[in-house]
Amino acid sequence: MLNPKDLLLYLCTDRVLALGRPLAGAVEEAIAGGVTMVQLREKEASSREFYEIALELRALTRRHHVPLVIDDRLDIALAAGAEGLHIGQSDLPLAAARRLAGKDMFIGVSVSTVEEALEAERNGADYLGAGAVYPTGSKADAGEAVGLGRLAAICAAAKIPVVGIGGVNVDNAGAVIKAGAAGIAVISGILSQPSIGGAARGLRRVLDEGKIRG
Amino acid sequence: MLNPKDLLLYLCTDRVLALGRPLAGAVEEAIAGGVTMVQLREKEASSREFYEIALELRALTRRHHVPLVIDDRLDIALAAGAEGLHIGQSDLPLAAARRLAGKDMFIGVSVSTVEEALEAERNGADYLGAGAVYPTGSKADAGEAVGLGRLAAICAAAKIPVVGIGGVNVDNAGAVIKAGAAGIAVISGILSQPSIGGAARGLRRVLDEGKIRG
Repeated sequence: MLNPKDLLLYLCTDRVLALGRPLAGAVEEAIAGGVTMVQLREKEASSREFYEIALELRALTRRHHVPLVIDDRLDIALAAGAEGLHIGQSDLPLAAARRLAGKDMFIGVSVSTVEEALEAERNGADYLGAGAVYPTGSKADAGEAVGLGRLAAICAAAKIPVVGIGGVNVDNAGAVIKAGAAGIAVISGILSQPSIGGAARGLRRVLDEGKIRG
Repeated sequence: MLNPKDLLLYLCTDRVLALGRPLAGAVEEAIAGGVTMVQLREKEASSREFYEIALELRALTRRHHVPLVIDDRLDIALAAGAEGLHIGQSDLPLAAARRLAGKDMFIGVSVSTVEEALEAERNGADYLGAGAVYPTGSKADAGEAVGLGRLAAICAAAKIPVVGIGGVNVDNAGAVIKAGAAGIAVISGILSQPSIGGAARGLRRVLDEGKIRG
């Protein structure tokens, strides 16, 4: 089951964007800095590698009581005992994933329009990743930025919680929360920074302030 | 449940090696020519595409009473309702796949040594794909050819049925069966031929003769 509070500062991994630093260490540093949920994304790894990294992160996130989400690969999520699955519009359809995931696993869906958001909600998504909010180079398949207006429309239309993803940083994270998001999802804004823990702490401070003011 | 007879002429797909011919049509022609089992391999497709092709082949193979096997992706195999899963040495570990696959799905494992064969058998594999028997260009990850001697050793050591894969054609298929294999797995030997149905018929004739003589 998803606790919407866990969406506040959602780290999505990318080994390339971690600038060569080992992923487990980088994730642990980010959690120490205040990351509340971790998504493992592996677009190039073999299934065996993906599974082994998932097991490694699973042990680490469990120790820190932070949910682990697997991107795209439901089989890896099930095999590694992850709490969640995240699927994009070119992944397994949500209805098919929902049937196999069992009722304990939560599922998030990437959306970039109100229509996609409502469809995902109808099909049983537990949260939405909406974006790209701002232009970003972190995801090759992120598409054009949807902007704060569209993010606000998605947040208003959906009953399930929404995280804003794409180009979110300390300067604009407050605006994303103000638009109605339950949190932000970040890749390079944490993993590509000289201090991973410092970057997470900086974002967390802005988010906590935004929540208090909001 | 696997019927070992279905391993006799096992077609593994590859959209590139089908020389641009639509996959469903090519598979149907191969089945009409005598293919007894079909494995869907998609190394480049998105999960959504993989799932959709799997559903298409699922309908087709079911109509012809031929089992469908999915390469690597247990989630696609489960979602599409395939009869089998095939895993290589860099895919999900067999024990993890076995736990999730349920008892109705059979699992085959690629091996190239007697040790790998015995380990897969111990961990619950239902059949083995041993190779590459002969040098082949069809699979980038096929490794060096193991030869007929090693194939015979694997067939002798394993209690579960073995299919020979890699460079098998009408001229050497009889020798593969003589080495103890329950069948052959073929990619380009069928899919890259001018007449897919004709190639399957030619192989099937050799195999049926081999079985009678053996």
